[in-house]
Amino acid sequence: MSLIHLYDTTLRDGTQAEDVSFLVADKIRIAQQLDELGIHYIEGGWPGSNPKDISFFKEIKKARLKQVKIAAFGSTRRARSTPEKDANIRTLIQAEPDTVTIFGKTWDFHVHEALRISLEENLELINDSLAYLKQHVGEVIYDAEHFFDGYKANPEYALKTLKAAEDAGVDCIVLCDTNGGTLPHEIPPIMEKVQAEIGAALGIHAHNDSECAVANSLMAVQCGAVQVQGTINGFGERCGNANLCSIIPALKLKLQHDCVTDEQLANLRTVSRTIYEMANMIPRKHQPYVGNSAFAHKGGVHVSAIQRHPETYEHIRPELVGNVTRVLVSDLSGRSNILAKAEQFNINLDSKDPVTQEILENIKDLENKGFQFEGAEASFELLMRRALGTMRHFFSVIGFRVIDSKRHEDEKPQSEATVQVKVGGRIEHTAAEGNGPVNALDNALRKALGNFYPQLREVKLFDYKVRVLPAGKGTSSVTRVLIESGDKETRWGTVGVSDNIIDASYQALIDSFLYKLIRDYRAEG
Amino acid sequence: MSLIHLYDTTLRDGTQAEDVSFLVADKIRIAQQLDELGIHYIEGGWPGSNPKDISFFKEIKKARLKQVKIAAFGSTRRARSTPEKDANIRTLIQAEPDTVTIFGKTWDFHVHEALRISLEENLELINDSLAYLKQHVGEVIYDAEHFFDGYKANPEYALKTLKAAEDAGVDCIVLCDTNGGTLPHEIPPIMEKVQAEIGAALGIHAHNDSECAVANSLMAVQCGAVQVQGTINGFGERCGNANLCSIIPALKLKLQHDCVTDEQLANLRTVSRTIYEMANMIPRKHQPYVGNSAFAHKGGVHVSAIQRHPETYEHIRPELVGNVTRVLVSDLSGRSNILAKAEQFNINLDSKDPVTQEILENIKDLENKGFQFEGAEASFELLMRRALGTMRHFFSVIGFRVIDSKRHEDEKPQSEATVQVKVGGRIEHTAAEGNGPVNALDNALRKALGNFYPQLREVKLFDYKVRVLPAGKGTSSVTRVLIESGDKETRWGTVGVSDNIIDASYQALIDSFLYKLIRDYRAEG
Repeated sequence: MSLIHLYDTTLRDGTQAEDVSFLVADKIRIAQQLDELGIHYIEGGWPGSNPKDISFFKEIKKARLKQVKIAAFGSTRRARSTPEKDANIRTLIQAEPDTVTIFGKTWDFHVHEALRISLEENLELINDSLAYLKQHVGEVIYDAEHFFDGYKANPEYALKTLKAAEDAGVDCIVLCDTNGGTLPHEIPPIMEKVQAEIGAALGIHAHNDSECAVANSLMAVQCGAVQVQGTINGFGERCGNANLCSIIPALKLKLQHDCVTDEQLANLRTVSRTIYEMANMIPRKHQPYVGNSAFAHKGGVHVSAIQRHPETYEHIRPELVGNVTRVLVSDLSGRSNILAKAEQFNINLDSKDPVTQEILENIKDLENKGFQFEGAEASFELLMRRALGTMRHFFSVIGFRVIDSKRHEDEKPQSEATVQVKVGGRIEHTAAEGNGPVNALDNALRKALGNFYPQLREVKLFDYKVRVLPAGKGTSSVTRVLIESGDKETRWGTVGVSDNIIDASYQALIDSFLYKLIRDYRAEG
Repeated sequence: MSLIHLYDTTLRDGTQAEDVSFLVADKIRIAQQLDELGIHYIEGGWPGSNPKDISFFKEIKKARLKQVKIAAFGSTRRARSTPEKDANIRTLIQAEPDTVTIFGKTWDFHVHEALRISLEENLELINDSLAYLKQHVGEVIYDAEHFFDGYKANPEYALKTLKAAEDAGVDCIVLCDTNGGTLPHEIPPIMEKVQAEIGAALGIHAHNDSECAVANSLMAVQCGAVQVQGTINGFGERCGNANLCSIIPALKLKLQHDCVTDEQLANLRTVSRTIYEMANMIPRKHQPYVGNSAFAHKGGVHVSAIQRHPETYEHIRPELVGNVTRVLVSDLSGRSNILAKAEQFNINLDSKDPVTQEILENIKDLENKGFQFEGAEASFELLMRRALGTMRHFFSVIGFRVIDSKRHEDEKPQSEATVQVKVGGRIEHTAAEGNGPVNALDNALRKALGNFYPQLREVKLFDYKVRVLPAGKGTSSVTRVLIESGDKETRWGTVGVSDNIIDASYQALIDSFLYKLIRDYRAEG
């Protein structure tokens, strides 16, 4: 099938998202990632709107990019002026990009209300702005802002604005669903009318306000669009832009369009996560194709099927986009989930072994009490090892005491923990302070156990989650604590449940330390 | 336009999402919310698969639901058996739901590989399972699992499976995109073929693996589907199910289909957030229609335009779904929010009063520290009263100490709190035990203050939520505690933030007691 051009605007429209902001250095790094991914155009910013964007266009010239074109974004000239006198258009040319993209008004309502000029005047400024740019820049793209809303309000006028752009010799006309209100069934009849009047290459720029941005983009490609604009992870104003992480694999794997190579596609998940990282955002777990849960199976029926044939419950092979299949364990899961997990941990478990049934019952019982093993796979491995009797006895904790106190109104509260542990017959009684009771307990345990197992000092706590579960009948509520720990090699999750938050945290901490010791002893053979 | 039936499977398919797990009490509360929202069917669970789901069907009978039908989910009978002997089918009937929904195999590959029976045998078990259920339950729905993949692989056989269901007198046949791999342009030609052969009412059940679940559902409705299955917030296995929070407003506002009332639609955002809360998940900020950023404007061009005409950059009016327009990075909008809130609390505040600016700065500062006043409006009212100097001095707490200890491995941990409070010059020093440190602290505070303010004994704690906020650069993480309290008349929320969870809880408890006292004194005049 034909080549579809991928046009990324993460650095421009993406930064209009709430909470997204990049330094110039970030932008350069992202541009390099996008180049590696095989993106064809990067919209680097709006040099007319802020100094940060101007310096991006300077800096990016020093980056050794492979094939991607850098586009600068702006608008048609102001009314009652000329393109050569327009400051915004001059700045675009001065930025010396490979491509310039400017937007203009399609919707008569906006011409009247926002620009406050006549419909005829708007056609002129679209045409002469583009024609002027085309003389000074290699490639010029026209973004028809609010195209679909404009077409629905006044189709004749909307088409006239496209004609004004085509007459200027523009390289591509991009139909924008600026407000994101368009539904996919509306795309084909409208694009058919456009193609009857306009011969220029067409593109699509969709927003996700109706949760249809990916669908609308793919519909437009089906109708003949040859350029797709979007952002990595769908970053963008309000509900975001069309998500290229979902569009690229659909184009390549499902519609057989040429766009990126197999190797580049296999790098998709890495690019997605790097850009979350640079935006300081937590990756969306359930994100299609690239999310941690995108190929995670929980229902028992699904798990037993995917083990024989992944295509039974997976629409594509996860490795094609750099992702992996994961099997989750929960009260919804059957024997097959347990067996799959055991295999993953290199534990020998037979489906006919009664211990498998025991583990299953154990899990259901614990989940009823409020335990949850998703995100706490280390606790799950410990549970299996205990059931199988393959758990080495590393230490026992006899008791703990945590004191939180605040003696005066303006004083910061103090936390102190004491613990008593027993290792190989020796009892160690230690105390430590901390920021809050859990931190104090963690410090005291490490101190006590660290004398025997120095490797526990490498363990870091990365995340600590607390959920108070609603109270059952006649009982007080129960607290679940999930802890994510790690060392320099890997990360693991553990869980604790109790009506006392300190006790629940303590259970999860102990599991975390035990898991570290098991891993290290296994590694040593 | 015609009535579209909304079928919610948050409680069944939704719980197959990684990290989503509900207790029976949660499920009942969610069902009540969905009933209020005007959902037509609630799929409560799979009674054949786990005991939690069986007890849901018992408990839900006691909930006073208005109009919603409760559906139980299961599968066609096992091979080499009969429907009356099938344990799964018997459990479905015993659950006594209004509606039973079972799924069967459409895809020949699954018949061979998963069921390991002949294609003919599969048709029989679809037909006789449904016919048997139709004799015992008022309404029977058939989920044609993997319909679209099955149709693409073997259209003739896929249609035969639907015919087998239709012949059993089923009330609705739901076309499932189980793996979520279908793209929107594929829906119309396939549905046209189905409608040429099948006269039964059709539904759609889409998954979001291609980020097209909402689009595919709306396409199917355009092609004549009269039932849409989905979940609130799109919870569900892997990448989730079709998101009803995006489908409902599109059906009602854009396609003019009858489904929920205007009042119900205006409650959409509240339902979305409540269900996030019950799943202990952070709401997705950029979620279409209901997210905090869905109508948030950042770009300068957009902001000035929407202030004159919101439709310039908003596809619908946010208040229709219970949301609001937000202008980011603007003191102006901050000020108007404060004034609106003050009015709500009957506090006289002038926009030119410097105290308004002070409150605004105070809030920004507190929000930076991790405070959040959504769901903690009582703390917000106290903050305003303190700034205005209209806060009576009821008591001061000099200090507290909480001790949690566990002396032996098998012992239950003990919690004891001591507090020192000062009321009208008198110091009270008291101690109390509790289930966990927060409960102990709560008991001790009530005991100490109750001697002076007996009405504090009426205060009950309804909910207690803890969120550990991600650590900033170089600082330790911060804990936010939200408490919901109430007396026989009303409920209120308070908040506390600290790097120590006990201290954060203590702040929220104190605010809760203060708020109770303010309300009572105000009531007395």
